Amino acid sequence: MTFDPARVVADLRALAQHTGGPEGSRRLAWTADWVKARDRFRAAFAGLPVDVSTDEAGNLWAVLRGQSPAMLVVGSHLDSVPKGGWLDGALGVMAGVELVRALGAEGTPPITVAVVDWADEEGARFGRSLFGSAAVVGSLDVEAARGLVDKEGQRLDQTVAAHGVDLATILAAKSRLANVKAYVEVHIEQGPILESKGLGICTVTGTKGIERERLVFRGQAAHSGTMPMEMRRDSLLAAARFALALAEIGRRHQGVATAGHVQCWPGVVTAVPGETRITMDMRHIDAGSLAAMHREMRQAAEESAKAEGCTVSFEPIFRIPPMPFHPKLLDAARASVKEVEGHDVELPSGALHDASEMAREVPTVMIFSSSIAGLSHTKEEDTPEDHLRMAAEAFHRTCRRAIELVAAGEL
Amino acid sequence: MTFDPARVVADLRALAQHTGGPEGSRRLAWTADWVKARDRFRAAFAGLPVDVSTDEAGNLWAVLRGQSPAMLVVGSHLDSVPKGGWLDGALGVMAGVELVRALGAEGTPPITVAVVDWADEEGARFGRSLFGSAAVVGSLDVEAARGLVDKEGQRLDQTVAAHGVDLATILAAKSRLANVKAYVEVHIEQGPILESKGLGICTVTGTKGIERERLVFRGQAAHSGTMPMEMRRDSLLAAARFALALAEIGRRHQGVATAGHVQCWPGVVTAVPGETRITMDMRHIDAGSLAAMHREMRQAAEESAKAEGCTVSFEPIFRIPPMPFHPKLLDAARASVKEVEGHDVELPSGALHDASEMAREVPTVMIFSSSIAGLSHTKEEDTPEDHLRMAAEAFHRTCRRAIELVAAGEL
Repeated sequence: MTFDPARVVADLRALAQHTGGPEGSRRLAWTADWVKARDRFRAAFAGLPVDVSTDEAGNLWAVLRGQSPAMLVVGSHLDSVPKGGWLDGALGVMAGVELVRALGAEGTPPITVAVVDWADEEGARFGRSLFGSAAVVGSLDVEAARGLVDKEGQRLDQTVAAHGVDLATILAAKSRLANVKAYVEVHIEQGPILESKGLGICTVTGTKGIERERLVFRGQAAHSGTMPMEMRRDSLLAAARFALALAEIGRRHQGVATAGHVQCWPGVVTAVPGETRITMDMRHIDAGSLAAMHREMRQAAEESAKAEGCTVSFEPIFRIPPMPFHPKLLDAARASVKEVEGHDVELPSGALHDASEMAREVPTVMIFSSSIAGLSHTKEEDTPEDHLRMAAEAFHRTCRRAIELVAAGEL
Repeated sequence: MTFDPARVVADLRALAQHTGGPEGSRRLAWTADWVKARDRFRAAFAGLPVDVSTDEAGNLWAVLRGQSPAMLVVGSHLDSVPKGGWLDGALGVMAGVELVRALGAEGTPPITVAVVDWADEEGARFGRSLFGSAAVVGSLDVEAARGLVDKEGQRLDQTVAAHGVDLATILAAKSRLANVKAYVEVHIEQGPILESKGLGICTVTGTKGIERERLVFRGQAAHSGTMPMEMRRDSLLAAARFALALAEIGRRHQGVATAGHVQCWPGVVTAVPGETRITMDMRHIDAGSLAAMHREMRQAAEESAKAEGCTVSFEPIFRIPPMPFHPKLLDAARASVKEVEGHDVELPSGALHDASEMAREVPTVMIFSSSIAGLSHTKEEDTPEDHLRMAAEAFHRTCRRAIELVAAGEL
């Protein structure tokens, strides 16, 4: 039994059949459908010398012991957003399953290889994404996680406890990293760039750093009929100026910058908005460029406020630095992509992945497949099947190279 | 007993004491506090030959019969928004009460004079403002009103029925207009213009026409990290361009134009908004200017959508043409303002009033007092007491002139 990209696709289709439907995937973390998907993961290793176990953070590990305890970890996540796509996360897990099966069939590999299904990558229910991988690298803020509650008022700590995860001991999962020397993940792009270039796969250079804040513009609420234009302090106009300036900053730096949510008070058709809240999310693969974008964003906000007689304040939401991947693993990925699709195109990832967390502690690399129309987190998410097979094969070759590097003591 | 502006102010203060408090006025229509305010209105005419009665629409009339059935109507509304101001509506009612008391004490006037407390001017609970005055002039859409429900799920038709109003017969209230020859209302400006000119009162030339629509900009929702700036179709950016263009249109035409409410879908920090809804409200005293503003607004919306690769559609909310007041009554008001404060300043009203409805059927005019900082619909609403007294006196003189005009058959 050799690594077969077609089997990866078949496994993905079978998973979709069992845990998806006309409304999309329903593998929301910590639910019965997610447990069902994990049962299929466990069953995949029947008859192979693979130890399947769950760590203190709820991550599911399938470990194929090698001649050395030094370890290559591969993986991604089986959980999906509600009504999600069939490939987001599942591609990386199923490609990893195929890798471990293929290596197991060949006999004892030179190093230990594990495939991990990271727990609750999406954070779709409690708002804390990268839950399991963050716990394993120790970057999870446990106290913040303890306070999280879903829309129905269910607590995160009680929900994960029903799956054997105790927040008090969750960071003990870090012991799993003791011998890990490399991490490889294959994922769909979730964006339109590969498709626009007519390509199926590429090397991923790292994940972009993110600055995420909520801006509050404050002016003066007033009657829309009686307050003359020249006496207004309209917070929505300040926010509108800001949103346009923010997009311009993203373009100028070849990054991305987005205003995703706006809310006005009093927020009625007959009132000049006295207060407007607007969220901003900006990303760049280069830390210096991200810092420059952030400075310009703050300045644009102050200028937008001033132009409309308003003030602005800033509330932090989230930030993560760029996570560049490892030079030697990047070379391995580049060589593999070259062999499989014959080019050296590489992209930074605009989305976060479990690889963003692993890259904090372990040499890491990723491979992307294309996404049709760039769609993800929706039932329309799809990728041409030949691109999925190429991505699985490039992942496989990258892993073979990573195993050689680890075995040679080069990672 | 002669007309005493100081008594109008004293009555307003007493009303505020009985139906207001530290949180502001609580005379929400169709509530116990509103009924309490109306009981005070009834009691004001004790000992005078005044008939107090309620019409089919819930409007409360106090009629002083004159030598002729030809009638001058004055009034405004006792109802307030929740936590509202002490003057909005109450000023016009209490000035009218004082007028009828003063005329009644003088003997039988040459024509019949009535003061009306219009029912539910604010529409604060069911969203239908000018309820009672619209019913009397026949412009109330009864079927639309029948379907209205408040935030607690209470139905308008059941609520008004508890106050003796049957929607099936409400338009019979129009018979009250049979002999009405003129309508005069005094109100606070609810805007900052008089204050900014250092004035206490002015003549009101009419109420501005209004165009009110909801615009829906549609682009493509996308991941904020993976969708390149140059491939986006960001509906919020289209709405931002529109909001700024809308304000410019308002300024260019010396009208007002406001975007008061914005909502994005999916409306999360990590997504490019695929759909953005934004409300617009534009007002002008000149019908031609309002039509031009409306045309330019539509064009600006199309251009804003196109610039961001989006589409836009328009949903009607409300429209009313400008309601210019009557030339002879305007002359009466101008002469009165001149006598009281010594100037000929006049303004259009940016807010709607019961006078906007009455002007459809009856020669009408209004007098404004100033508003401190232009504030209204809030407990901070206030007016210097000397301005209130001047406004009451200018109203009184305008009414005396109106009575003469009606008696002379000139209206």
